[in-house]
This record gives sequence, C-alpha cells and structure tokens, in this order.
Amino acid sequence: MPKRFDAEMTQLKKRLLGMGAIAEDMIAETIAALVHRDEARLEKVRVEEERLDLLQREIDDETVRMIAVYTPVASDLRLCLMATRINAELERIGDRAISICKGCGRLFAEPPLKPLVDLPRMAEIAQGMVRNVLTAFVEGNADAALAVIAKDDEVDNLNDQIVRELITYMLTDAKNIQRALSLIFISRAFERIGDHAVNIAEDVVYVVRGEDIRHKHA
Amino acid sequence: MPKRFDAEMTQLKKRLLGMGAIAEDMIAETIAALVHRDEARLEKVRVEEERLDLLQREIDDETVRMIAVYTPVASDLRLCLMATRINAELERIGDRAISICKGCGRLFAEPPLKPLVDLPRMAEIAQGMVRNVLTAFVEGNADAALAVIAKDDEVDNLNDQIVRELITYMLTDAKNIQRALSLIFISRAFERIGDHAVNIAEDVVYVVRGEDIRHKHA
Repeated sequence: MPKRFDAEMTQLKKRLLGMGAIAEDMIAETIAALVHRDEARLEKVRVEEERLDLLQREIDDETVRMIAVYTPVASDLRLCLMATRINAELERIGDRAISICKGCGRLFAEPPLKPLVDLPRMAEIAQGMVRNVLTAFVEGNADAALAVIAKDDEVDNLNDQIVRELITYMLTDAKNIQRALSLIFISRAFERIGDHAVNIAEDVVYVVRGEDIRHKHA
Repeated sequence: MPKRFDAEMTQLKKRLLGMGAIAEDMIAETIAALVHRDEARLEKVRVEEERLDLLQREIDDETVRMIAVYTPVASDLRLCLMATRINAELERIGDRAISICKGCGRLFAEPPLKPLVDLPRMAEIAQGMVRNVLTAFVEGNADAALAVIAKDDEVDNLNDQIVRELITYMLTDAKNIQRALSLIFISRAFERIGDHAVNIAEDVVYVVRGEDIRHKHA
C-alpha cells in the first residue's frame, strides 16, 4: 500500500475521532440538560446532531473513494470497512441522544419525579466507553477494546437498577407513571449508547486480532 | 467488471435473501409465540438466531473477499458495501427478536394482561417491510424502497397507540404495571425492526439513485 494511503487513513481516523468527540459531547450535554432541566442544552444537542449527519456522509464518501483509488486488500481493506461501520455507529449514538432530548422535553413540562443519581453515572460510563473505544480503534489496541466491552455490564446493571426503581415509583403512585416511563426510555437509550460502543469495540478486536467475537460474549 | 463478479454478486444477493427469510420467520414466530403463549416457538427463534449469526460472518467474509479479488469501483463497490450493511441490519433484527423472546418469557409466567390485537398487526407490517426491502435491494428498485420507508409511519403510529393504551392499563391498576411495561418494550422492539428495514431502504435508494436520503425523511 502506498504511503499516501497510510497518510489518508491517518486523516480519516482523525475525522472519526472528531466525530466521536461530537457524539461524546452530545451525551454529556444531554444528561446535563436532563439534570439541570436546561432547554438551551437540548438545542445545542440538536445542532450537533446535524453536524454529525453531515460528517457521516463526508466520511462515507471519503472511505468509498479510498477503496476505489487504492484498492486495498486484507487488513487495509478491513480497516476501511471498519471506518464506515464506526461512522454508522457514531451517527446512531447521535440518534439516541436526540431521542433522549425528546424525552427531556416531555419531562420538563412537569415537576421532577425524583433526584437523578444513577442516570448521570450511567451516562458518564457510556460516554467514557465511546471515548475509549475510539482511542482503541486509532491505536489498534484490542485489549483497550475488550475493556470497553467489559464495561458494558456496569451500564446494563445500572439500567436494570434504574428500571426497577422507577417501577416502584409507578407502583406507589399512578401520578408517577408517565414520568417514570419517560425516564425508563431515557435510561434504555443510554444503555443502547453503550451497545453502540460495544459494536465498535468488537470490530476493533476483529480487525486487530482477526478474531470474530461478535456473538461470543453475549 | 468481469462476468464472474456479477455471477458472485447474484449469489451474494441470494444469500442475503436467505438471511432475510430467516429474519422474517423470526418475526412471525416471535409474535405467534407471544399471542399463543407458545414456549416451543421461542426456542425455534433462538435456534434461528444462531443460524443468522453464522450467516452474517460468512457473508461478511465473502464480501471482503469479493472487494479484494475484483477491486470493484463506483456502483459495484457501493453494492458490496451495501451488502455488508444489510447483513448487519438483518443480524440486528435477529437481536430484536431475541429481546422480544425474553420479554415473552417474563409474560408467560403471569396471566395475560389483555387480548393482543395491535401488536400482531404491527409485527405483520414490520415483517412485510423486511421482505419488501430485500426485494427492492435485489431488484435495484428505489421506488419499492421508498414505499418501505413510507410504511414505517404506520408502525410508528401503532407503537404510539399501543404505548398509550398500555399506560391506561397501568393507571387503572398497579397490578398491570409490570406486564404493561413488558409489552411496551416488546412493542418498541417491533418498532425498531421497522427502523432497521428503513435503514436498508435508505441504502437501496442511495445506491440506486446516488441520492443520500438518510437524514432527510426524519
């Protein structure tokens, strides 16, 4: 593979990191919006989502161009294909953030149901997973990717705990049901963000080690 | 592009259709299991999920091999990349079916909450979307793909209606809350299956017309 390919791949990775930074910021702003009941932050997330969509198209076109121009094989080709998949996963993280924003909109119309403690913790872990998996991708570090996969259990457990607690709120008072349900959907969306990070991590392990673990750790 | 490429692409499309047929059957069996409270069907879906996972890996490897061997460009390359993405979407439909099965397991332990009318309708529409979008892909028919995207509104509306109705069940009697919540999660999973069909449909429109509609109709 010519040096130009490597140089362009480095650029592509940088752009994916840039996209990841936006996705990360969307997660941080979304949970801050929810905790502080801050409409302005929701608006910021919506603007970021548009940037993410635009970046996704550009990176997709760029990857296709690189495959066509350099006709990479073996691990270089796998790397290009992985770039398109990471791209798609990051865009989906943006979609989840947007659906959380919608849930926030509904919640802001009513008084808070309860202080939020576990949800911010969960969001923080999910955000860390997104950051770490992109570093793992750029550094080609399979161990770091596996650590991201391991972290997902914490997110899943927090989600289970949050759902259980919200069900008790529903059972205590029917007036809580709508708000508890909105929070359950939001919790699930953060949990799904963790899943997207795991999808990327599995891909990193596959490309680095040539080992397909997509259906193993489940 | 040599004729061998076209012949192999035809084979690849057939395999994706085969995978689609399994995904479709999983949807049909899952909703039948739910309606008839039939454990045996749940087990069948779990076996189908394993076949789907295996097929996904094979088709992925096959696509990478084709890109490496034939170094396709332009629309042929787009077609190969689309095959890997359809592959991933079908596997995710399988994942949704499995999570519905888990919800069924919880519901079967208790008496039925209500007769299910809208959920089977929704599942049937989602199943039809999966079938039609794969036909659209194989035939390179952008109009048929757009029809699948249009159909998604029906699924979304049914989901909204189902969730609203289940919330009234929750409000009426706290004993309904757990079961209603399980049904809400199941309904959302069918709704997400529709979304996966839409993802594929957007890809078909893109490859056939060169027009990126991924972020337009939303």
